[in-house]
Amino acid sequence: MIRELFDLDDDVVYLDGNSLGVPPRHVAARVNEVITQQWGRRLIRSWSEGWWETPERVGDRVGRLVGAAPGQVVVADSTSVNLFKALMGAVRGTERGEILVDAGTFPTDGYIAQSVAELTGLTLRAVDPESFEVGDAAVVLLNHVDYRSGRLLDMASLTEHVHAGGAKIVWDLCHSVGVLPIELDRLGVDLAVGCTYKFLNGGPGAPAFLYVPKAAQEDFHQPLTGWTGHAVPFAMSQDYTPDQGISRARVGTPDILSMLALDAALDVWDQVSLADVRARGLELTAYFRRLVEGLPGIEVITPDSEWRGHQVSLRHPDAARIMGELIARNVIGDHRPPDVLRFGFAPLYNTDEDAERAARALQELL
Amino acid sequence: MIRELFDLDDDVVYLDGNSLGVPPRHVAARVNEVITQQWGRRLIRSWSEGWWETPERVGDRVGRLVGAAPGQVVVADSTSVNLFKALMGAVRGTERGEILVDAGTFPTDGYIAQSVAELTGLTLRAVDPESFEVGDAAVVLLNHVDYRSGRLLDMASLTEHVHAGGAKIVWDLCHSVGVLPIELDRLGVDLAVGCTYKFLNGGPGAPAFLYVPKAAQEDFHQPLTGWTGHAVPFAMSQDYTPDQGISRARVGTPDILSMLALDAALDVWDQVSLADVRARGLELTAYFRRLVEGLPGIEVITPDSEWRGHQVSLRHPDAARIMGELIARNVIGDHRPPDVLRFGFAPLYNTDEDAERAARALQELL
Repeated sequence: MIRELFDLDDDVVYLDGNSLGVPPRHVAARVNEVITQQWGRRLIRSWSEGWWETPERVGDRVGRLVGAAPGQVVVADSTSVNLFKALMGAVRGTERGEILVDAGTFPTDGYIAQSVAELTGLTLRAVDPESFEVGDAAVVLLNHVDYRSGRLLDMASLTEHVHAGGAKIVWDLCHSVGVLPIELDRLGVDLAVGCTYKFLNGGPGAPAFLYVPKAAQEDFHQPLTGWTGHAVPFAMSQDYTPDQGISRARVGTPDILSMLALDAALDVWDQVSLADVRARGLELTAYFRRLVEGLPGIEVITPDSEWRGHQVSLRHPDAARIMGELIARNVIGDHRPPDVLRFGFAPLYNTDEDAERAARALQELL
Repeated sequence: MIRELFDLDDDVVYLDGNSLGVPPRHVAARVNEVITQQWGRRLIRSWSEGWWETPERVGDRVGRLVGAAPGQVVVADSTSVNLFKALMGAVRGTERGEILVDAGTFPTDGYIAQSVAELTGLTLRAVDPESFEVGDAAVVLLNHVDYRSGRLLDMASLTEHVHAGGAKIVWDLCHSVGVLPIELDRLGVDLAVGCTYKFLNGGPGAPAFLYVPKAAQEDFHQPLTGWTGHAVPFAMSQDYTPDQGISRARVGTPDILSMLALDAALDVWDQVSLADVRARGLELTAYFRRLVEGLPGIEVITPDSEWRGHQVSLRHPDAARIMGELIARNVIGDHRPPDVLRFGFAPLYNTDEDAERAARALQELL
């Protein structure tokens, strides 16, 4: 759609934007300006010339991509740390006894949920997200798009299901933000987290985000009570009083270089609509699917319906070797053990030709 | 000492390196190379070409500045998050009932300690670090250099005191790393944290560090069990098994742009010895002290002895206004409420002339 805005070599077929997005061309110059001008010339003064509010300001920009009105998203820390805040905040004071997580979850979600369960005395239960009883759950943590298969869950009906069962829901948007329109506010989602280095192209390990809706902020208490979440941080008072708004989800001093790299990377989203991105992503993944279906030994595990993210996952017993050889031919996807090949399609820079070249290379290898 | 290596304007007297260090000149080009080459050209492949091990590799570089042999420091997350890991790890399984923190602590330490106390059922007790009973403490958290007054604590005798009382000690090195030689290994320190954006010049909000000595690693369990701390992260297994070594202190995907900016910034330390830096820092602060002592309304609160960091803190009832006017004259220190003026001296780039110009400007204002 806007490939010319990305710094991507023509001889590379890059189908791993679901793991690490490609840098928009202008990011390098922007970061250089941050280092040489904001840091070098303005020094400490930059903290009061915009740096301090970066987590909320960039959070609002991410918010526009997930259907969150301003003042409800902060960009900060890693996804794992934000999962910890979200789950600890969600179960605080509950009289219920369970935390639910989808059985095929990305590992870090399950690990953090297990840790929260141990800390709070609750029990972790892994469930099939397409068929589960809420039971005694205080909170349910679901991955909007499954990192392995690319399956997309129905956020509307599952949020309703969890609420009907009297629990809170936390959505992990790592593999869906930048993929399709998301409506956190409208659906009444309780909490959401996500990363910014996949389809948002924020850079390797770029800061993650946490969504806490306005109405829930006053009762949101998370245990990482770092000084930047304080109501009046520079009062340097002895007792922690959380900020009244979303800033209470902040912890330590924000990581400005990475955060402003992300800020720059988000500019490309001003030029496209998520509905168009989604339509194009469905086209690209459908096209690639047609090209590889029926290749010897290949099983497509990504849903054929529209309930999928922007990736096509293939199963093959020799997946690790095959991906190694594809990468040697400059066709870059990735391998998830034991036997899954993942090909991500980022409509902003991927093309039909990428799908064709990847399918051809795969065919030659099989 | 090596001011020519720093990108600092001659018309600025910058005495706030204890809050945000100055960028070494080569950092901007290095980060540009990371974005355009490592990220842009190598894309996802960079994760297996060095990125993944960055927290441990850069951690070892910081380790050399704090007397830690390799394999005991990770660079990751913020100081606040690392404090949480350290304190939760330190009190896990204890039968003791208290957490001690110095009464004048930097706020975030106290806030996090309070949160850990609430989570674990222990009691937080604020103490005078120069005179306290260990009592029923499981862990004692002390700031090596007090952010407000610049007082330096005696790490050797206090570590011994805390150990004699049967507790663990966590040192916060935010205001002492890069100031003087520190000997974590030799003194048998249990845990330490610190930031890298002050005297280490890592950049605004650069990742912090956490030290866990080899012998304690096997029993170090912290609740932020993110996937990158797993023994075999890419096995993507369902259960969390912590890495056997220091990597268990990692949480989420490392923030590469900021971490490699820090990596570049650390290069300047290869050219100096910490003993020389310390000697020069004592000279600079002593010189500035002589120049400002006796100015009307000024009380110097930084210790006159060598038990001080590289800052001179002055008390004046009109501190906020005075600092505002100093900054307007390009003499940049900072103000800590209610009445403290702080002037930090970073021997790598500060000079006698900086001290003279700052003292002259202050004199003119009083």
